[in-house]
Amino acid sequence: MAIMRLGRVEIGCPNWEKSIEYYKNVIGLIEVAREEDRVYLKAWDEHDHHSVILKKNDSAGLVHLAFKCEFASDLDLYEEKLNNYGVTTERVPAGTRLAEGEAVRFVIPTGQTVELYSEIEVVGNGLPLVNPDPWPDGLVGMHPTRLDHLLVAGDDVDGAVKIFTDLFDFHVSEQLVAGENNDVTICKWLFKTNTAHDIAIIKGPQNGLHHFAFWLDEWVELRNAADIMAKNDVMIDAGPTRHGITRGTTIYFFDPSGNRNEVFCGGYITYPDSPTITWTEDTIGKAIFYFERELNERFTTVFS
Amino acid sequence: MAIMRLGRVEIGCPNWEKSIEYYKNVIGLIEVAREEDRVYLKAWDEHDHHSVILKKNDSAGLVHLAFKCEFASDLDLYEEKLNNYGVTTERVPAGTRLAEGEAVRFVIPTGQTVELYSEIEVVGNGLPLVNPDPWPDGLVGMHPTRLDHLLVAGDDVDGAVKIFTDLFDFHVSEQLVAGENNDVTICKWLFKTNTAHDIAIIKGPQNGLHHFAFWLDEWVELRNAADIMAKNDVMIDAGPTRHGITRGTTIYFFDPSGNRNEVFCGGYITYPDSPTITWTEDTIGKAIFYFERELNERFTTVFS
Amino acid sequence: MAIMRLGRVEIGCPNWEKSIEYYKNVIGLIEVAREEDRVYLKAWDEHDHHSVILKKNDSAGLVHLAFKCEFASDLDLYEEKLNNYGVTTERVPAGTRLAEGEAVRFVIPTGQTVELYSEIEVVGNGLPLVNPDPWPDGLVGMHPTRLDHLLVAGDDVDGAVKIFTDLFDFHVSEQLVAGENNDVTICKWLFKTNTAHDIAIIKGPQNGLHHFAFWLDEWVELRNAADIMAKNDVMIDAGPTRHGITRGTTIYFFDPSGNRNEVFCGGYITYPDSPTITWTEDTIGKAIFYFERELNERFTTVFS
Amino acid sequence: MAIMRLGRVEIGCPNWEKSIEYYKNVIGLIEVAREEDRVYLKAWDEHDHHSVILKKNDSAGLVHLAFKCEFASDLDLYEEKLNNYGVTTERVPAGTRLAEGEAVRFVIPTGQTVELYSEIEVVGNGLPLVNPDPWPDGLVGMHPTRLDHLLVAGDDVDGAVKIFTDLFDFHVSEQLVAGENNDVTICKWLFKTNTAHDIAIIKGPQNGLHHFAFWLDEWVELRNAADIMAKNDVMIDAGPTRHGITRGTTIYFFDPSGNRNEVFCGGYITYPDSPTITWTEDTIGKAIFYFERELNERFTTVFS
Repeated sequence: MAIMRLGRVEIGCPNWEKSIEYYKNVIGLIEVAREEDRVYLKAWDEHDHHSVILKKNDSAGLVHLAFKCEFASDLDLYEEKLNNYGVTTERVPAGTRLAEGEAVRFVIPTGQTVELYSEIEVVGNGLPLVNPDPWPDGLVGMHPTRLDHLLVAGDDVDGAVKIFTDLFDFHVSEQLVAGENNDVTICKWLFKTNTAHDIAIIKGPQNGLHHFAFWLDEWVELRNAADIMAKNDVMIDAGPTRHGITRGTTIYFFDPSGNRNEVFCGGYITYPDSPTITWTEDTIGKAIFYFERELNERFTTVFS
Repeated sequence: MAIMRLGRVEIGCPNWEKSIEYYKNVIGLIEVAREEDRVYLKAWDEHDHHSVILKKNDSAGLVHLAFKCEFASDLDLYEEKLNNYGVTTERVPAGTRLAEGEAVRFVIPTGQTVELYSEIEVVGNGLPLVNPDPWPDGLVGMHPTRLDHLLVAGDDVDGAVKIFTDLFDFHVSEQLVAGENNDVTICKWLFKTNTAHDIAIIKGPQNGLHHFAFWLDEWVELRNAADIMAKNDVMIDAGPTRHGITRGTTIYFFDPSGNRNEVFCGGYITYPDSPTITWTEDTIGKAIFYFERELNERFTTVFS
Repeated sequence: MAIMRLGRVEIGCPNWEKSIEYYKNVIGLIEVAREEDRVYLKAWDEHDHHSVILKKNDSAGLVHLAFKCEFASDLDLYEEKLNNYGVTTERVPAGTRLAEGEAVRFVIPTGQTVELYSEIEVVGNGLPLVNPDPWPDGLVGMHPTRLDHLLVAGDDVDGAVKIFTDLFDFHVSEQLVAGENNDVTICKWLFKTNTAHDIAIIKGPQNGLHHFAFWLDEWVELRNAADIMAKNDVMIDAGPTRHGITRGTTIYFFDPSGNRNEVFCGGYITYPDSPTITWTEDTIGKAIFYFERELNERFTTVFS
Repeated sequence: MAIMRLGRVEIGCPNWEKSIEYYKNVIGLIEVAREEDRVYLKAWDEHDHHSVILKKNDSAGLVHLAFKCEFASDLDLYEEKLNNYGVTTERVPAGTRLAEGEAVRFVIPTGQTVELYSEIEVVGNGLPLVNPDPWPDGLVGMHPTRLDHLLVAGDDVDGAVKIFTDLFDFHVSEQLVAGENNDVTICKWLFKTNTAHDIAIIKGPQNGLHHFAFWLDEWVELRNAADIMAKNDVMIDAGPTRHGITRGTTIYFFDPSGNRNEVFCGGYITYPDSPTITWTEDTIGKAIFYFERELNERFTTVFS
């Protein structure tokens, strides 16, 4: 039993029509279903019904994020752990949103609404399960293979991290620390899968969303993605560059509603016994943008 | 608690001196320690003391393979499961080989000796744990980041697979089937991590080793690896090419002792809910070598 | 004044409809014009009206190849040189094929019909000449940027080479030699541009075509091209691999009419003072297929 | 007869020891010879004795640049053309610098000293001329294959360009223009080889050097180069990014003496009939840095 992956994010989109068009044709996600105020999208290589929900909203930002568990019984188990820990939970009934089963919902100390679920309609990745080719025809835009991770902000970073490490068996791959004794947490990167991070939590505005990231397989796809951004007048925040943290390569950019996106590629493999890497405040530039070795102001101040 | 990864392989090397030289300078593994009849090697980005043991031997082939578990208590737990299932186990005392803690040893129905362990000396990956650069200087040869997976052969494939799926919670990512009703297993690919396979088991000579594989991050590194093979007169069996199975890209080649190596790159991410992909016998060429769409005879007949 | 480049090839296509469909959708050339028995195609980044003419024919093979000269006056100049050298020429009037100006036609000692021309309708590369993006939308298939080179066969290799070197100022980048004193020419690679070869001439059947090649910018595009071949059941002859000769990376494959195509990438830059590299017969495997270090029989025996 | 390529640059290096160390170990050029106040370097795949001369100097900047001609007689021919055009020339005797033959020297209207030469000692590229492997062992740093181009500044851009186009048969691949009628030249990119540019000339400080560039074969090598810059605390000015102009991908960075270097990769092929592409002032950001679509101030103001 366990959390398997970051299953979905629901994103507020005040710039509604342009955002839909952007996620479909520029990012290259596939629209699976649509309601009055929600569009359900998936990356091409995901099998579940959706991983990104666009929500027609007055403001940008994260409406909720959700982790998919292996078994239905995991929900009871995690709920009990959360309640014992003092976290209030509620059950979100199946059918609250399209194609989804029941979920356990709670709020983490940094303010984000998190859900755990195990049931969602499976629609497949567009390839047959018998003798498939490696990729389907007809992909457009950057066409990432999947949702990869997100970085959320809030005040009590250590409190939020503890829920993931103590209750959900996440591990800390990297941390950025400050203070005279390097004992003040600025940010922690957490993994449950074998990737370098499934979620990261940074000191910042409560319930803030810094970015959510899509996976690209290779550095050369980042160049292609950057071309597509330029051709479509998408505002690039930073990159293509490398992160010191995770070693991953990256581009940060903004959707038409002001949410920061990332295309991320690479990074090392992690296991429960991977050591935690620490970055000190004086090397924050190299930690975040390894090539430039300095942050732009926008990167540290703009959240949605 | 769980198996975390394929932790090590021990490989018989009749062509002793040349094999050592090859794994160090052509593959680019790092020698960590040496005994009279064993050389202990690690890939640069691994933190544990070793992942490959070369064993001075009269014959090539697999001496043993081992999975690393998260906790010492996992050994008891898995041992009990194995015994209840009817598999005889023995304890390998700490210190039997260099740097290793205690292990549980057993033989799977295809004849391979498998060990489970949780303790091994940690030596690090050559980078500091504070403010590290993304890669160390001084790497040589193909310098893969890590041991990735192996393919073993034997008679009772389904019996061996059952141990991994039923007792160790591995999942089947892909299978190659034959027979009129596609109900004869030729090969199954199994994962415990989020990679496309940690071990695969194929119908073939008992206790056979088809190949073990090192991870390269990108397609371009396969070209570089092939250049290094050509410069060093390493015999290439197949590739650079793509697998239909796993979508990974690959080169197969032989060490000086006759063991088949692979450098492997890519493939999709897996989760416990990933569907099993099936390949039918009539597409076996495409399944194994997607570009060539036919097997060479050597590939299907040479095991060590 | 000078020959600027290999401007076009005209290719016999007995398998007419399938060949048209293949060059357009699998190779990804653009159809510019069509006649009863000819289809005119260009690679996307070429500016001239066409570089490949498919000719409805009873047999596969090269109908003619042509080099584009910088000035109309070059035709007179080369014609005089050819005639003085003892080569008979004829004038092909403008309008003989679509969009083309006048040409000087002659036959080289290996049997191929060669034309020199300077006028052809310019249609552009699909990008504006003011503030263009780096690539246009809507490309399909392998979409090479341009026709790169070809390899033709015949009996009198040295005789054919002499015309290119002595009359047209081509240089020999590489040669494959045989015989006790390495004085028998098997093949010579010739360049006029700064690429590793514009034409190569090999001992073989008179007026033979071994292959013509399209340019891809990067090794990763060869992988993509191979995927497209596999998805479309295109027969691959060899590759992806590297040539020892030119250092270029390559895939050889066949069109539906039996003409061998190549997608070629890389190779060094040449200048008139580049030294000629020699390959001896005993290393022919490595010379042609650097990774495999052996030729397949098909590669040395099949010409169209 | 013709200019074949940009043959060498001589660069002023006030920070003498660090600059030598940098060009050898960070860029990865090979030291061929050394005098009291000059170090002679070549990129690994160049055959001539040197392409970069470091000059111990009080100030950074370009001491001279030189083009290699095919024949000794080209010097007489170009000299006559220059003199007829009103440009004063002088002969630089063989042996003025190491390994070099005689040169014709003159100053272009933007203030740079230019030399034409045809003789220089040939030392080879480290690979045999018979049966060579594709690359030699022992390369360090970014190890570009060759010097590619440079961008110089001065007041009379059109005057300098005319010498290259009218006397030396260079062609304009791209131009950046300003003014109400787009008739003011800011910069022109010129080619004589089939690359996108051999030299570019921009409005700026007289006898200014904006940068000189080394060739890398692939986008992935730019990432590697950027890693090496970060590991060696080399200041990056911009990149990895793409140029709108030439489509090439690039990193700009500074040597320890304050000269701007570039590693450049890609760009289209050119021929004498390639159309000139024009960029208008309002798109200057996209023209120079296609991804960022804005210039940094340093890029437009710092020359050496």
